[in-house]
Amino acid sequence: MPGNSFGRALVLTGWGESHGAAIGGALDGMPPGVAVDIADIQSALDRRAPGGSRFVSQRRETDTVEILSGIYEGRTTGHPVAFMIANSDARPRDYSAIKDLYRPSHADWSWRQKYGVRDPRGGGRSSARETAVRVAAGALALMVLRHLFGDGASVRGALIELGGDAVSRDNWDWNEIPRNPFFCPDADAVARWEKRIDDARKDQNSLGAICQVEARGVPAGLGEPVYDRLDADIAKALMSINAVKGVEVGAGFGAARMTGADHADEMRSDDSGKDDSGGVKFLSNNAGGVLGGVSSGQPVVARFALKPTSSLARPLRTVDTGGAEVEAQTKGRHDPCVGIRAVPIGEAMLALVLADHALRQRGQCGGFGVAPG
Amino acid sequence: MPGNSFGRALVLTGWGESHGAAIGGALDGMPPGVAVDIADIQSALDRRAPGGSRFVSQRRETDTVEILSGIYEGRTTGHPVAFMIANSDARPRDYSAIKDLYRPSHADWSWRQKYGVRDPRGGGRSSARETAVRVAAGALALMVLRHLFGDGASVRGALIELGGDAVSRDNWDWNEIPRNPFFCPDADAVARWEKRIDDARKDQNSLGAICQVEARGVPAGLGEPVYDRLDADIAKALMSINAVKGVEVGAGFGAARMTGADHADEMRSDDSGKDDSGGVKFLSNNAGGVLGGVSSGQPVVARFALKPTSSLARPLRTVDTGGAEVEAQTKGRHDPCVGIRAVPIGEAMLALVLADHALRQRGQCGGFGVAPG
Amino acid sequence: MPGNSFGRALVLTGWGESHGAAIGGALDGMPPGVAVDIADIQSALDRRAPGGSRFVSQRRETDTVEILSGIYEGRTTGHPVAFMIANSDARPRDYSAIKDLYRPSHADWSWRQKYGVRDPRGGGRSSARETAVRVAAGALALMVLRHLFGDGASVRGALIELGGDAVSRDNWDWNEIPRNPFFCPDADAVARWEKRIDDARKDQNSLGAICQVEARGVPAGLGEPVYDRLDADIAKALMSINAVKGVEVGAGFGAARMTGADHADEMRSDDSGKDDSGGVKFLSNNAGGVLGGVSSGQPVVARFALKPTSSLARPLRTVDTGGAEVEAQTKGRHDPCVGIRAVPIGEAMLALVLADHALRQRGQCGGFGVAPG
Amino acid sequence: MPGNSFGRALVLTGWGESHGAAIGGALDGMPPGVAVDIADIQSALDRRAPGGSRFVSQRRETDTVEILSGIYEGRTTGHPVAFMIANSDARPRDYSAIKDLYRPSHADWSWRQKYGVRDPRGGGRSSARETAVRVAAGALALMVLRHLFGDGASVRGALIELGGDAVSRDNWDWNEIPRNPFFCPDADAVARWEKRIDDARKDQNSLGAICQVEARGVPAGLGEPVYDRLDADIAKALMSINAVKGVEVGAGFGAARMTGADHADEMRSDDSGKDDSGGVKFLSNNAGGVLGGVSSGQPVVARFALKPTSSLARPLRTVDTGGAEVEAQTKGRHDPCVGIRAVPIGEAMLALVLADHALRQRGQCGGFGVAPG
Repeated sequence: MPGNSFGRALVLTGWGESHGAAIGGALDGMPPGVAVDIADIQSALDRRAPGGSRFVSQRRETDTVEILSGIYEGRTTGHPVAFMIANSDARPRDYSAIKDLYRPSHADWSWRQKYGVRDPRGGGRSSARETAVRVAAGALALMVLRHLFGDGASVRGALIELGGDAVSRDNWDWNEIPRNPFFCPDADAVARWEKRIDDARKDQNSLGAICQVEARGVPAGLGEPVYDRLDADIAKALMSINAVKGVEVGAGFGAARMTGADHADEMRSDDSGKDDSGGVKFLSNNAGGVLGGVSSGQPVVARFALKPTSSLARPLRTVDTGGAEVEAQTKGRHDPCVGIRAVPIGEAMLALVLADHALRQRGQCGGFGVAPG
Repeated sequence: MPGNSFGRALVLTGWGESHGAAIGGALDGMPPGVAVDIADIQSALDRRAPGGSRFVSQRRETDTVEILSGIYEGRTTGHPVAFMIANSDARPRDYSAIKDLYRPSHADWSWRQKYGVRDPRGGGRSSARETAVRVAAGALALMVLRHLFGDGASVRGALIELGGDAVSRDNWDWNEIPRNPFFCPDADAVARWEKRIDDARKDQNSLGAICQVEARGVPAGLGEPVYDRLDADIAKALMSINAVKGVEVGAGFGAARMTGADHADEMRSDDSGKDDSGGVKFLSNNAGGVLGGVSSGQPVVARFALKPTSSLARPLRTVDTGGAEVEAQTKGRHDPCVGIRAVPIGEAMLALVLADHALRQRGQCGGFGVAPG
Repeated sequence: MPGNSFGRALVLTGWGESHGAAIGGALDGMPPGVAVDIADIQSALDRRAPGGSRFVSQRRETDTVEILSGIYEGRTTGHPVAFMIANSDARPRDYSAIKDLYRPSHADWSWRQKYGVRDPRGGGRSSARETAVRVAAGALALMVLRHLFGDGASVRGALIELGGDAVSRDNWDWNEIPRNPFFCPDADAVARWEKRIDDARKDQNSLGAICQVEARGVPAGLGEPVYDRLDADIAKALMSINAVKGVEVGAGFGAARMTGADHADEMRSDDSGKDDSGGVKFLSNNAGGVLGGVSSGQPVVARFALKPTSSLARPLRTVDTGGAEVEAQTKGRHDPCVGIRAVPIGEAMLALVLADHALRQRGQCGGFGVAPG
Repeated sequence: MPGNSFGRALVLTGWGESHGAAIGGALDGMPPGVAVDIADIQSALDRRAPGGSRFVSQRRETDTVEILSGIYEGRTTGHPVAFMIANSDARPRDYSAIKDLYRPSHADWSWRQKYGVRDPRGGGRSSARETAVRVAAGALALMVLRHLFGDGASVRGALIELGGDAVSRDNWDWNEIPRNPFFCPDADAVARWEKRIDDARKDQNSLGAICQVEARGVPAGLGEPVYDRLDADIAKALMSINAVKGVEVGAGFGAARMTGADHADEMRSDDSGKDDSGGVKFLSNNAGGVLGGVSSGQPVVARFALKPTSSLARPLRTVDTGGAEVEAQTKGRHDPCVGIRAVPIGEAMLALVLADHALRQRGQCGGFGVAPG
């Protein structure tokens, strides 16, 4: 019944509050013998970490991951890989002003109704701080994918729209992403987005965003019909990220506006000479790499929409825990657009879903399909 | 590892192929003492059933549900409610022409890669026929919601866009829905959609659609942070339906284009005199009834996008199982827009998710929150 | 939360009551391509079936299994194998006399306390009738074991003690088992047991029993430390059978009376020339084939104790549902020793546990260990 | 698929190796508002800790528990309670002599076959050190039971047989248990057991043992038929403890030697005046508090048998990882009877099972039954 575990064959169990001693998790079901470079986990965390630019939360944490179990001489043993990230910059005093009221569009009201009690320190477990655990686990999941499918297996992501301003597909350059603070693949959009963020902050307001994540080098055959389809689990994984309100795979909502003839991903014989292609190629990928809930061997592509940051410096109407009408105004350290830091989180969740389904597939069917040209 | 069970506290296990002896399921975890009217289950199935109009598949089945266990003298016993629907109109011969090729945008390729074997009879388990099991289970789940929360608990849905043509919110009338074959709430749209469907069929083409489902009368407190959030499980539930490519909750993808000030669902003291409101009301519902992954007591609102029907009467390029380039052309009975019949399926999945989370909430927390005015 | 599913990778979901329309189940997670001979499932059911001799219940049912899904052209498809057994000889009237009282040592009291309601027809789902579903599923699980490990994989069982009278290990002959109605491997014990059963029936009394089950030809490496150990899941599987009160593996309770030196299963180099032995052999098997919760490749051996049949023809003191003191006396058709028919049920549960763990092992670790000489 | 989580509604996920940085766990599903006294968790750990007397391992660890999350102002928040116990006395050098051979009756062989790799440091995760995590979690589970059922809810245990020498039921005194290093309820047995242990150690040998655990003050209605019966989950829980080879409930294996008339737990009207007794009392408890897999409200009583310690100071025949015949002789710090320290572990597992099933029962059925007089 509880909800702090994710996955069936590769199971992440996370714990920890924003302002407690630490956050952490255990990843159980790791295949034995997977090479683990802790520096890679740390790099993933550093990409998500706050404090990296003036466009994200000024909370400064080193977010240093500590591995507690499951690795011996640089490889997994098959036992849970537990890890912990200390909360070095916890400042509970920041939140005393808001502990007795329900911040609009936050978890305050619903969680209080659920649990009857509330840990007001920075939102407690509802804080996006828990997503650091997802990122660490996602880095481990990516190592599993590479262990199974070789170095061609990859997961990457980009911010493709901020405040309603979308990147241009014509300008898309994956190499641009690490050069700007937005995970933006379009250099032209970067300058526009900087201004948008600055304007929003001046206006004591915030902006929403859309992220895209994709996986390559993953074979056909992953996904468990009929309820645990690969796309269904991707949808769950991405929707479980704080502030996400929508998820789509492949052509997504756009598919609803296409005709069947336009949407069909037709197939031809493969002439690429690529090994293990199954001898076929797809002429398009409106499916986003998932057919009938099972990976087709094409790139797995998903997008997710994040609402604007709920904590605003301007006053919002709300009620306090006694029912009186008050105003909520947030003075803490918050991202003007939570979507920016969501890119590495989305990548991590996609890696976790794929690694989980890879192990499920190997268990039931004993092997993997091919990746068409 | 297998994927034919859905839910954690109220668990649907489904089985059956399109052209086997029967399809069916067992719903385990039913609270004891729930009044079950089998006629209500049958009604739900009848709404989904093919053959209802010229706009949906001409496969004619009575889809008669038979209850096999778990009910005694009209009430649940607490044991699994198993049910079965015979496949009265199975015609495997229809599919002989396509059993050796991969139909584009179907599960043929990916499932063959997964399982190594293939049941070609009408898509086997990949057929949308399995959704009848979801609908029967959803009808039972709705009975659970009413058992727990009274007759005010309801789930309903509508088709809000067909082939890119959306209903008008100004024309919205829930009473219109049973009067047309599209589950359309806008009488003006019905005539336009009839023509669109007819045109698509003439053109040997198909159309996509968008459905909306919503639940009312469900209290705050449902949803299990941080991975099994209510919206995450709704996303999984809806994305697991055949042909669905996108899911959103509340303002959804639109939230990414709103500012934080516009998106905030502000709160005021409730003056409705309504019991059990917690003394508060929300001034808007951009959240779609889910805050921090937990229901807020507002209506739970979700939308999902369906791709156009993949089976077309026109030829599409593909390969056969031997790798030769061929054309696929479908002559069977198929819906020109699979989205139409998806409305009752989406309602069923929403009911299943809510009933599951209601029982999980009662288990961990012992009771339920309130529904604000 | 519900309890009608068993297994993690190969999941049996069972349903049905003693006097409803049917009992049945679905086995999800079946590897694709497993050859399924329905006659073998039927044979397994026939071994468990009542009516086979005067020593077991005179309820006469053909217990004919009907496969509803998951098999195409004699092989599994990877989708759930659903099956059903009609209740052809349901006679609810037999039980009208006892529906308002709590039969001692039955589930009547505790289930009424649990569910608040009660299906009195022959115990409803608490009847041992549900074990037919286990036996059918166990037959399928054995096919999975043979699919994975070859025809050397086997599961068998014996009744080794009845009413306190144990078989002699010196007289043990597996071939004797099908020749008598007791699954007894000791021809000398058979005559003694016949008299014991007859005497117990004359005395309106009943007897307990102990069964042994074992699996051979199963490799090392099955079992998931630290909580889902193979022996832990075997213990659960066997203890979940009606009337079982104790379970032991290998030397079992006897191990508590051995010294470490006597109990140690020492190892030597293998000189058997057997392939895939890992080059080692064990000199004894006090472990019962499980070391550290993981199979060692030796035979997996477990025993379980069954209490005497609770339904007696003699009066027992109890109370009725109104609290009045009354006497319970059972006139229905009951086995004088429920342990007799437990042998095929225990075999089935052992097969289910092993097949489940085999798929789990393949998923996480990619293959299997060896079976020492 | 992985096996390091236990429970369904209250889920313990454990991690850590004998000689890594730490061991720990997270307990998810904790009801909110449960009062948690960390000193009680520490006390439970102290009871299990090595070094307490000359009769147990001389490994000296303070086993200090550190709570990392899930508790705010002395009460649970409903989020995972994560905890950690540092391995302060890890001495991996002790084990270098045995890392290349398979110690008889240890997990060395089977785990190596399973994982392909091996962490030889003190057995890694196969060490009984992981049971400290169970004990800490069990202390939390007991707090849940008291939160739900009041202070009358209790779990306790005793060592009832050591090296084949059983306690006398006539001498049984629960108050004796904390006065001796054996958890022995019979003062007369203590002196005899001291000599047995000393003799075994002199003989470089070891002894087995039998423990009894019982729970009182727990209502009827816990347990989920038909596979997740309360006794089935107790059997799994206890069999999952290192070195356990047998489990029984109530009359256990003895029930197999009783007649139905002797075994029947007859019922009468209750004249105790006790509230909430349901108006009935049982005249005996051969069932061990579980009828039909569901608690009856009587004390829940189970016993489990532990094999003698496998690590002996005398040489045992085995093979090394290269297949050569060698002798294993253990020089590390080991208990001459692992059963002694198993009592608090068994109590912990029983508490975990009962708390898990209590939450499951509340979820499905909304409340609890009564405890008969």
